[in-house]
Amino acid sequence: MQLFRYKIRFSRIDALFISHMHGDHVLGAPGLLSTLHIFEREAPLHIFGPQKLQAMLEQVFQLTDTQLRYPLVFHALEQFAPGEVIFETDKLEVRSIPLTHHVFCRGFLFQEKIKKRKFDYQVARELDIPKQYFHLLKQGNDVELPDGRQILAEGVLFPREPSLSYAYCSDTVANAELIPYIQGVNLLYHEATFMENMRDRAEQTLHSTTLDAAQAACDAEAHTLVIGHFSARYHDLEPLLMEARSIFPRTELALEGRVFDLKHHV
Amino acid sequence: MQLFRYKIRFSRIDALFISHMHGDHVLGAPGLLSTLHIFEREAPLHIFGPQKLQAMLEQVFQLTDTQLRYPLVFHALEQFAPGEVIFETDKLEVRSIPLTHHVFCRGFLFQEKIKKRKFDYQVARELDIPKQYFHLLKQGNDVELPDGRQILAEGVLFPREPSLSYAYCSDTVANAELIPYIQGVNLLYHEATFMENMRDRAEQTLHSTTLDAAQAACDAEAHTLVIGHFSARYHDLEPLLMEARSIFPRTELALEGRVFDLKHHV
Repeated sequence: MQLFRYKIRFSRIDALFISHMHGDHVLGAPGLLSTLHIFEREAPLHIFGPQKLQAMLEQVFQLTDTQLRYPLVFHALEQFAPGEVIFETDKLEVRSIPLTHHVFCRGFLFQEKIKKRKFDYQVARELDIPKQYFHLLKQGNDVELPDGRQILAEGVLFPREPSLSYAYCSDTVANAELIPYIQGVNLLYHEATFMENMRDRAEQTLHSTTLDAAQAACDAEAHTLVIGHFSARYHDLEPLLMEARSIFPRTELALEGRVFDLKHHV
Repeated sequence: MQLFRYKIRFSRIDALFISHMHGDHVLGAPGLLSTLHIFEREAPLHIFGPQKLQAMLEQVFQLTDTQLRYPLVFHALEQFAPGEVIFETDKLEVRSIPLTHHVFCRGFLFQEKIKKRKFDYQVARELDIPKQYFHLLKQGNDVELPDGRQILAEGVLFPREPSLSYAYCSDTVANAELIPYIQGVNLLYHEATFMENMRDRAEQTLHSTTLDAAQAACDAEAHTLVIGHFSARYHDLEPLLMEARSIFPRTELALEGRVFDLKHHV
């Protein structure tokens, strides 16, 4: 229903990443998979989650007589070492991040692969470089033209655009071991279930406070922090935002439907 | 999320009624039960559904380490005969309705109990009836007053207000055996998955067409028909509404968030 509401086409979803087997993180999965089925998806869908998730999906679909019309490819997170690449596309790598919770729990780091440097056609034309040399230059090779001029690739390539990254860290208690995995990330989603005055409860339930999240963003030198997973006791989220910003000013709230464009968090 | 959107307080829900074990009818249940838990429900919740639903809930809650903080009272629908009262409150009786689908499937009839006739205090005062006789009259007894006058209960009681009823019939193929169970219902929800030009497909999949739903409403002498469970192929629902109204004019569409007040369907 949220995908409909925010006009996100089902066909753009290639993979689901589920951190752990608590109800608020996993109970929507069977319904989503079933809806994709009803809307006649045929492309394979990859699911990454704890081994128990596979058992849950199998049992639910068996009890509801559901034979999905598309291939569901399940990948158990237990098989991957922390930090290991678990999924990749042409442009993207996804890595597993170790989190610390009551049950087996993994975050995810989404990283663009190193981008090709773009070719400066205008400069190439101004220098009168014959077209047949473009390909070599694009690949980073310096060339000597028939007229004897040396052309350096450096001179006709734009600077490399940065590879953008997003880390998803929920649910977890504050843990310094997490930091190396999210170092330098553009956007860090970090749970902040409680305010600082409930630190005891956070430690007991293995959740984070606003200040834990902000400290993680500082330590990891993230560009922007997004906090979420707020306890249902908080009706006004402004105090949580203010508290996190007291340590890490570039903090935002994860509100339903909000979109963060990584290009603006560099 | 829909309950939040339409401002329906969780505390007003005493029981859930699930017709059958297909994904579009049952996959939301674990999430709803889990949300009630997170919002600290303590009152018991009754669930009526196929026996397999209990297995599903137990497995899902076991795999997600969920111990609900409120008592969940499961009632398997298989134990009730069609038409039998399965649940009652002070004011309401709920009965099981036999439906015809690929899997075991039951509809539900919600019926107000017979209402007490209201006492006409104004007439009673005008007749100078001593207060100690009110109770007998309210219970329908005729009385003789100390001054010798005979007072008939009929004269001081308003006509009995009708007991309102709502029937939920989804999913089912057209089946005349259903009619006696929904005779005279104020509001009939009946599935209409397909338009009439897809009758073959409806019979194959054991679903109803708009005309099947309208005919059921006619045969049962329902006051108002609400059609729903439309195939995802229909983006514009107006033709389905028009087709049903060609047989049963008082037909409405079951649209998300729409409210039908039974008092207006008498």
